[in-house]
Amino acid sequence: MTTFKPTTIEPTIFESLESEVRSYSRQWPTVFETAKGAWLRDEDGKEYLDFFAGAGALNYGHNNPVLKKALIEYIAGDGITHSLDMATVAKRRFLETFAMKVLEPRGLDYKVQFPGPTGANTVEAALKLARKVTGRESIINFTNAFHGMTLGALSVTGNAFKRAGAGIPLVHTTPMPFDNYFDGVMEDFHWFERVLDDSGSGLNRPAAVIVETVQGEGGVNVARPEWLRALADLCSRRGILLIVDDVQMGCGRTGPFFSFEVAGIEPDIVTLSKSIGGYGMPMALTLFKPELDVWAPGEHNGTFRGNNPSFVTAQVALEHYWSDDRLEVSTLEKGDKIHAEFSKLADAFDGVTTRGRGLVQGLAFENAESAGKVCQLAFDNGLLTETSGPTDGVVKLLPPLTITDEELDHGLRIIADATATVCS
Amino acid sequence: MTTFKPTTIEPTIFESLESEVRSYSRQWPTVFETAKGAWLRDEDGKEYLDFFAGAGALNYGHNNPVLKKALIEYIAGDGITHSLDMATVAKRRFLETFAMKVLEPRGLDYKVQFPGPTGANTVEAALKLARKVTGRESIINFTNAFHGMTLGALSVTGNAFKRAGAGIPLVHTTPMPFDNYFDGVMEDFHWFERVLDDSGSGLNRPAAVIVETVQGEGGVNVARPEWLRALADLCSRRGILLIVDDVQMGCGRTGPFFSFEVAGIEPDIVTLSKSIGGYGMPMALTLFKPELDVWAPGEHNGTFRGNNPSFVTAQVALEHYWSDDRLEVSTLEKGDKIHAEFSKLADAFDGVTTRGRGLVQGLAFENAESAGKVCQLAFDNGLLTETSGPTDGVVKLLPPLTITDEELDHGLRIIADATATVCS
Amino acid sequence: MTTFKPTTIEPTIFESLESEVRSYSRQWPTVFETAKGAWLRDEDGKEYLDFFAGAGALNYGHNNPVLKKALIEYIAGDGITHSLDMATVAKRRFLETFAMKVLEPRGLDYKVQFPGPTGANTVEAALKLARKVTGRESIINFTNAFHGMTLGALSVTGNAFKRAGAGIPLVHTTPMPFDNYFDGVMEDFHWFERVLDDSGSGLNRPAAVIVETVQGEGGVNVARPEWLRALADLCSRRGILLIVDDVQMGCGRTGPFFSFEVAGIEPDIVTLSKSIGGYGMPMALTLFKPELDVWAPGEHNGTFRGNNPSFVTAQVALEHYWSDDRLEVSTLEKGDKIHAEFSKLADAFDGVTTRGRGLVQGLAFENAESAGKVCQLAFDNGLLTETSGPTDGVVKLLPPLTITDEELDHGLRIIADATATVCS
Amino acid sequence: MTTFKPTTIEPTIFESLESEVRSYSRQWPTVFETAKGAWLRDEDGKEYLDFFAGAGALNYGHNNPVLKKALIEYIAGDGITHSLDMATVAKRRFLETFAMKVLEPRGLDYKVQFPGPTGANTVEAALKLARKVTGRESIINFTNAFHGMTLGALSVTGNAFKRAGAGIPLVHTTPMPFDNYFDGVMEDFHWFERVLDDSGSGLNRPAAVIVETVQGEGGVNVARPEWLRALADLCSRRGILLIVDDVQMGCGRTGPFFSFEVAGIEPDIVTLSKSIGGYGMPMALTLFKPELDVWAPGEHNGTFRGNNPSFVTAQVALEHYWSDDRLEVSTLEKGDKIHAEFSKLADAFDGVTTRGRGLVQGLAFENAESAGKVCQLAFDNGLLTETSGPTDGVVKLLPPLTITDEELDHGLRIIADATATVCS
Repeated sequence: MTTFKPTTIEPTIFESLESEVRSYSRQWPTVFETAKGAWLRDEDGKEYLDFFAGAGALNYGHNNPVLKKALIEYIAGDGITHSLDMATVAKRRFLETFAMKVLEPRGLDYKVQFPGPTGANTVEAALKLARKVTGRESIINFTNAFHGMTLGALSVTGNAFKRAGAGIPLVHTTPMPFDNYFDGVMEDFHWFERVLDDSGSGLNRPAAVIVETVQGEGGVNVARPEWLRALADLCSRRGILLIVDDVQMGCGRTGPFFSFEVAGIEPDIVTLSKSIGGYGMPMALTLFKPELDVWAPGEHNGTFRGNNPSFVTAQVALEHYWSDDRLEVSTLEKGDKIHAEFSKLADAFDGVTTRGRGLVQGLAFENAESAGKVCQLAFDNGLLTETSGPTDGVVKLLPPLTITDEELDHGLRIIADATATVCS
Repeated sequence: MTTFKPTTIEPTIFESLESEVRSYSRQWPTVFETAKGAWLRDEDGKEYLDFFAGAGALNYGHNNPVLKKALIEYIAGDGITHSLDMATVAKRRFLETFAMKVLEPRGLDYKVQFPGPTGANTVEAALKLARKVTGRESIINFTNAFHGMTLGALSVTGNAFKRAGAGIPLVHTTPMPFDNYFDGVMEDFHWFERVLDDSGSGLNRPAAVIVETVQGEGGVNVARPEWLRALADLCSRRGILLIVDDVQMGCGRTGPFFSFEVAGIEPDIVTLSKSIGGYGMPMALTLFKPELDVWAPGEHNGTFRGNNPSFVTAQVALEHYWSDDRLEVSTLEKGDKIHAEFSKLADAFDGVTTRGRGLVQGLAFENAESAGKVCQLAFDNGLLTETSGPTDGVVKLLPPLTITDEELDHGLRIIADATATVCS
Repeated sequence: MTTFKPTTIEPTIFESLESEVRSYSRQWPTVFETAKGAWLRDEDGKEYLDFFAGAGALNYGHNNPVLKKALIEYIAGDGITHSLDMATVAKRRFLETFAMKVLEPRGLDYKVQFPGPTGANTVEAALKLARKVTGRESIINFTNAFHGMTLGALSVTGNAFKRAGAGIPLVHTTPMPFDNYFDGVMEDFHWFERVLDDSGSGLNRPAAVIVETVQGEGGVNVARPEWLRALADLCSRRGILLIVDDVQMGCGRTGPFFSFEVAGIEPDIVTLSKSIGGYGMPMALTLFKPELDVWAPGEHNGTFRGNNPSFVTAQVALEHYWSDDRLEVSTLEKGDKIHAEFSKLADAFDGVTTRGRGLVQGLAFENAESAGKVCQLAFDNGLLTETSGPTDGVVKLLPPLTITDEELDHGLRIIADATATVCS
Repeated sequence: MTTFKPTTIEPTIFESLESEVRSYSRQWPTVFETAKGAWLRDEDGKEYLDFFAGAGALNYGHNNPVLKKALIEYIAGDGITHSLDMATVAKRRFLETFAMKVLEPRGLDYKVQFPGPTGANTVEAALKLARKVTGRESIINFTNAFHGMTLGALSVTGNAFKRAGAGIPLVHTTPMPFDNYFDGVMEDFHWFERVLDDSGSGLNRPAAVIVETVQGEGGVNVARPEWLRALADLCSRRGILLIVDDVQMGCGRTGPFFSFEVAGIEPDIVTLSKSIGGYGMPMALTLFKPELDVWAPGEHNGTFRGNNPSFVTAQVALEHYWSDDRLEVSTLEKGDKIHAEFSKLADAFDGVTTRGRGLVQGLAFENAESAGKVCQLAFDNGLLTETSGPTDGVVKLLPPLTITDEELDHGLRIIADATATVCS
């Protein structure tokens, strides 16, 4: 089905005018034009099944028709588009729905901040607030964390290549081992707790811990519920704020709306972005316990913190997908399906293992290069999926949560074939 | 026309659920619903003339019909919405139009980076790149600068209240006096050049200078063309990169597309955001000379750097408004009109002065509180406008560039009346 | 023999004029006048046996007669006193003797820097050099390290109370667990090596590791030779410089001249101070491998880096004590004696353990307060000794290396009695 | 009288064993052996008149006989040498004399801290205390300041070459123009006061200002009394602590004991070192107003903060030289003599100017290289003097205060001849 594509069709203005910093256009060298549900179509009409979902920003699929209808109506009716943090009807509807569908059913008492529309914005706001509340400057992050590319967010990100881009030493943060970093050799938090206890340890007392429950960029590393509970308990006992960065893993990616629900914990601060807007347009939230709401008016701001079209699609998405538990159940079932399929591959091929939760699943290759080859073959066969982890040795699956079983089967077959080709 | 609004209609969910950090909803205590051109309408049907324009993000007015049509068509046709930095048809059209309508006519040879969709994202990318290229860490900023709220952007922002929100010392930057900071007493760059020359001055050698040609948040402080030329010349002679932050003043706000055109300079790096997307939805660009394009693929990234609906409206806005010089000419004429009206107020009232360029104009009050009172009265009379400057003593006008003469006259009358009331 | 001392004899000018920062004058509330060998005498004629030795600065005892003779002769003969880093006869003699008695017999090829006369000076010089050579900024230090109180030295010191005194966040350093920090639960360097290996760990790649072989201030924590060898090996494999801070443990404190000799390693950089001058007057050295000598002339300096009276006593001390192995042998024998005595106490009393190497020995109390009580009782009975460790739970013994067996027995009896009193 | 010195007599162990960082031994390539008063003698018997005085550490001359007698007696009598911050008889005598001869006659109410024996130690202590007291981190320093080489002291030092040696960005400090930096063009403190006033200036609010009244290393830049008074007044009005670093200019170098007496100001914190010990052996003090004495016991410490031989010579020096005003008067007279002689040179030669106060005097050459040539010629003719300033264009004179008129005349003749040779 792959059409012949001579190299001269290369989209030259991207090469001549766009910065060398571009990356996805290199690994998926075609020009995309339209998209719908789990499918993208390029300008030559070739279709690609999407197991990537905008790096987690498209949990409800591309151009979801329910959201699309509301979005077009809002725009057609001249609903206000850009409003900074003025009160708007669209924002009120979103807040009411967020309270009713998300917070109240889960017994969560959070204030909501609109910190600017990106994941980095909400991480920056969370770090600022934690420092302001505690009067301390140091933050604990975890090995292989990814939290964003602005200076504050980058300082808690692990990737050495991305850190080096800062051009200044990134300080005020200390990495701790993520769950299972030592393959079970050392007890959880043995080191962290010891240096906190020991007034001679040299660790600056932290304002906060920032953690992802599943590290997507870091290689689909899944924190066990009991590890998360122990972390929350440790933070609580020590007066350290717990920030769960749910930018990628929230909005149902792992099954429940918040990824931390599986552990039964209640973080002090939660960051949301990516799929919160529903339609793939920029939006972000910072949630925190009411007693932490020490912001002065305007102390943090941003031009695009009131992107109303996103409020509209966000509201409809919550209404449509989070009024019952069907999406959660289906996400877990589909995750199980992937896991079952991946387990077969792991059994069949040496050096292949599987990991994940809900609809973030990873197929890890001991020989890291194999992961890249699998993704390359998958692309050639019409499937978008990318690698992750410090050595790019994990094929990471982030399909839309709304993918059908048939689509999922189709994509898994492509991966299974590619794995067989690469590993045989 | 103002409807009676009892205080009990207070939008309570904003108070109960949204963070205390909200600010515009306090100064303009109503709930906006729709908007068109230079007008907003609240849910009670009251209309407000907009001399604020989304803090400069709505140069083409609210829900501009030309852009709206293209936007709805794109969405209706399932054009790809979210694409990170994949190549897309919408992005190609934008790049082609940006090259043809903006760069080529001005003889500017810039590479284009999509750094994430906000002004802070492009400032962070610019600072990173300047540090990477030069291998130095220090940045020179100017008194009363505003560049954003993420940690890197905040470090070059002047406002002490916003800086304090960082919760850590903001370092690696040294402020220098903006144009006319000493009312002409000291020669331009006397201090800056002296400390650069003097190897014993204690100034860490800077990677870059970051400057706004007109400081909007800082109080509508206008840099003279000769000052900008002298700055560009100084940077060039010293091997320091010149970053012009055109997030607020670009896209025609001061007349020409880039605000630095008036000075005939060519900065090394230029940041754009706010109105570049055209419709008020998030988008940003970082432009730099080709020899500075030392980024490795993916060294800076961001989930929302490919917000295609904004590419569509951005492209149409460039096509429609920047194919000839009519918008530029009209902006300068309207700026002259405001200036003339403000000059009358300055003549009529003690302690009132005027400043600005194109359609960013300020009415400065020696008694800073008067500015706030004028804005309050204006709001009561259906006009949105805000104060700026370190003591909030300047009424700042940022009307849409597409405002009609009648609308402009109407708004100016409201301000004139308010000024008369406050200053008499 | 203890004379009656009414509280009114309190040395009031110390209270009224000297800063509250003073500490030893509080724990040993008397006014010392003269000293000789292992004894101090206060102005009332009361004598105190010294198991403290100027915190390790008096390895050859107070006013050692051999050194004293040379010192007086030098001063009487108008030998140059203060010379910065000019060449002097006294310095040449010291350098020649240091090469002949210290470096050559041990096969050590080090360049010698005079970095200023204190331990903090040599640590600061070592850190600067390591950063300059590697072009990296980050330093690895160890839990419960003590390296000094100037800003650079303090940043690698563990004690939270002392760190807080900096008044700014101390950054650019990451603590790692010292030997036996986990009581053998975790393999040596498991964590350190893992975060170095993992490009996603978030650890800034270090310029150097700084380590004490025995942590005196930290609680007499002794690093095993195999741990030190593994550390040196790890540093060598990773291109990280190894700095051994031998300010307190060098000059024979643990037996051999350098404390790292027991491990058979050759650090890249070694710091010496305290007893290197011999007579208790300020002097310090920084030693490093010749290929690291990238200093430009004057790039690091200091007014008192040429304190010639110390060069004189340092030279005589090396000549007199390090021409054969008698001091080393005697130090180890006396260490064994203390260890034997302490082991009896450890056997006799619950919660008491012993640790140490050579003539740095610790008696650790599970109930930390007991250590302070033992020292207090010892002082009342004419013995100076102090506590150390993060909870001050270790009685630390640093007697002069020249102490006689009788003096040692006398002091150990006082400690044994005090321990019996406190623990019974 | 100069003996023939073949180049082969080069002191080779300094070259082979000592680090490349050595500097004075390069510019004065001989090996010094003894010294007395204003004279040094090398091992070949050649004598050098000293217009350098240990960079200000030898105000009372080399091996001053009054101090020498007391020093030898103290050592011979086994006076305690090393005592950390225990109370000792020698320290009490010093404190009593310092109170009686220095503080009380000047009406100064200061607490005295012994911060470690070097200038850098006292600067580090001063900065720590200022930050602790104010809770702020930022420090204002001045162009061409020199305060020391440890990380804290280096951060407030101006010299770019020395700063670069830190290997990390030196932050938390902002340089301001020293007196006359603009040759009178700009009003004093115009810039400093403006950025303090302006909450949008981007200047982090400073804890303290640190200043030298005469910048020795910086090129003999003399602050006018009225400038110092204005600075003290500004600090007082703004709640910023004023630190006068009197390490080099204190102890009578400019005439009065403290260099700031000429301005009639009372700094909040004063640092002393160099000549405070009297005999050129390490000692330092930090003085501060009693209400600033918020140190906790041991919060700052250092092994050599109790160097009793220096207390002895310091006490005798105060007793002998500061019981009347003879030294002060003579210093001013000798300063006038140098100034008169230098003025003749300035009149005689183009591009030569003179500057100084008391016995720190500079002869500045527009052609910076000339200064080095003059010092070279002076050395050849038996006179030690060095250059200073950012381009090393100033011959700096720091003779012992005890120099005789004949010696002074002799040295000035050598300089006059050298200047004539170089400038003719």
